[in-house]
Amino acid sequence: MNLVALAGGVGGAKLVDGLARCVPPDRLTVIVNTGDDFCHFGLHISPDLDTVCYTLAGIANPDTGWGRMGDTWAVMEEIGRLGGPTWFRLGDRDLATHLERTRRLQQGERLSEVVAAFCQAWGIKVKVLPMSDDPVSTIVLTKEGDELGFQDYFVAQQCQPEVKGFRFMGSETAQPAPGVLEALWGADLVILCPSNPWVSIGPILTLPGVREALMQKPVIAVSPLVGGQALKGPAAKMFRELGWQPSPLAVAHFYQPLLHGILVDNSDAMMAEEIQHLGIIPHVTDIVMRDEQDRIRLAKEAVTFGQAVREALSL
Amino acid sequence: MNLVALAGGVGGAKLVDGLARCVPPDRLTVIVNTGDDFCHFGLHISPDLDTVCYTLAGIANPDTGWGRMGDTWAVMEEIGRLGGPTWFRLGDRDLATHLERTRRLQQGERLSEVVAAFCQAWGIKVKVLPMSDDPVSTIVLTKEGDELGFQDYFVAQQCQPEVKGFRFMGSETAQPAPGVLEALWGADLVILCPSNPWVSIGPILTLPGVREALMQKPVIAVSPLVGGQALKGPAAKMFRELGWQPSPLAVAHFYQPLLHGILVDNSDAMMAEEIQHLGIIPHVTDIVMRDEQDRIRLAKEAVTFGQAVREALSL
Repeated sequence: MNLVALAGGVGGAKLVDGLARCVPPDRLTVIVNTGDDFCHFGLHISPDLDTVCYTLAGIANPDTGWGRMGDTWAVMEEIGRLGGPTWFRLGDRDLATHLERTRRLQQGERLSEVVAAFCQAWGIKVKVLPMSDDPVSTIVLTKEGDELGFQDYFVAQQCQPEVKGFRFMGSETAQPAPGVLEALWGADLVILCPSNPWVSIGPILTLPGVREALMQKPVIAVSPLVGGQALKGPAAKMFRELGWQPSPLAVAHFYQPLLHGILVDNSDAMMAEEIQHLGIIPHVTDIVMRDEQDRIRLAKEAVTFGQAVREALSL
Repeated sequence: MNLVALAGGVGGAKLVDGLARCVPPDRLTVIVNTGDDFCHFGLHISPDLDTVCYTLAGIANPDTGWGRMGDTWAVMEEIGRLGGPTWFRLGDRDLATHLERTRRLQQGERLSEVVAAFCQAWGIKVKVLPMSDDPVSTIVLTKEGDELGFQDYFVAQQCQPEVKGFRFMGSETAQPAPGVLEALWGADLVILCPSNPWVSIGPILTLPGVREALMQKPVIAVSPLVGGQALKGPAAKMFRELGWQPSPLAVAHFYQPLLHGILVDNSDAMMAEEIQHLGIIPHVTDIVMRDEQDRIRLAKEAVTFGQAVREALSL
């Protein structure tokens, strides 16, 4: 069975890691959001790609969810001494990734080629694809009328501004990276990872051809919301500010009409019926990934559930 | 007395450090070569500026002559693991300088403004100026017909290729940085530091207005060659490949007609007469700077000698 996972940052990376440990590597393709990518110190920084790759390589910082395990901070401390910006924390080893990525891009390599080279260096066997080789920038539109770059909103302003909407700058002209549509059309099951629907999965869905392919495939999601809260990040806050009661039901609504099934947490069991009314099959289980065992268990459960959904759809 | 020193890398930085320790800070301006500047990993790297500033700030690596004292190598090691280029060694703390410089330049600051900000952060009291805010790139023309960027020649190819000449790309349109001509015109004495005449002092002399100002001023040099050898770097090799017997006499020739005096090493005392025949006053002394005491002693001796030259010229 060919699996495709769409993922953003931390939550998505954890599920992808679980999937990579329970399916053959040549059967899994991960398509990663690059809407959060930005330029800082002249470097091309791809937060979601790095979180997914560091996690798959077993070198992610388990405490922060971003950056490298056991990284040091010599460069950042020194930048602080020079009066430079330190709001976006760049560890020394993490910086090497950004420097080498930037160098390769400037030499004419495409982002997808850089990712492939890094995956090889890091011993990652599953295929990781950026959603696009073209720049797409998630812009957060605030109630105050500001248009904030995502990292400005997310890191510098710590998600404080009230959100009115989003704009994915560049998505009108951006093409899916080589392999993205091929993977989707070749998929037997697509899993939307527990990442922020608005700013992690959403940008991927805006790319030409992605929705069209997904509409022909069995698609399941793992809810990024548990008991009305996001486990990490501003997803619940965004749903609320945009007028939705944050819950797996809202997530299911969000992904309509392309979603066929959704894994929701035991604590949200009472919503199963309403989700079913949307024509989406709910699967109630423990979806919180506390450790590696949880990642593998949830990944297996998602695949098994996905197969059942696929059979039910006779797709 | 207003002093201006023209400097390149290691040797120049040492004398500048000596000068800074024996004249009032508001009386010394250092004009630094930027012909070696280059772009690596998308970062603007200014090797000579950094060597001069690190040395003045007391944070230079005393063993290598470049980079920072006690620096660590986490980033570089990791870049190596990713298959990236490691031929230009960038320490972690040194990288912070390049990152913050690049960020400021991209925000529209001029190089001279960046240098001023860094000098303040590092507690450097004397005025350090880049020779130009405009890009000037030293290109090494080889006997084999190649045109090598300076760092490619100097670091990657370790000065192996035989030199046929130099080109200073951009120098036709580059302007001296703000303050450079003002400092030169206001100088009571100009000291050409013991830096490579061809590729460290030479580029500064190509800038419009610099030679004209120097022609009106008492100018002395400290020979970068001792006993036919450069203490560091390819100066002797360059002189030889370009058809000159490497010696303080060749240095004096090189700087004609703008040079009035030159400090040469005891081991080159036999050349004093020939130098005198060029109309340049030789001063024979120990010009090798082994430690801080040497730097201060030589700086004092240079200033005293310069004053004598100045009086002899009645300039």
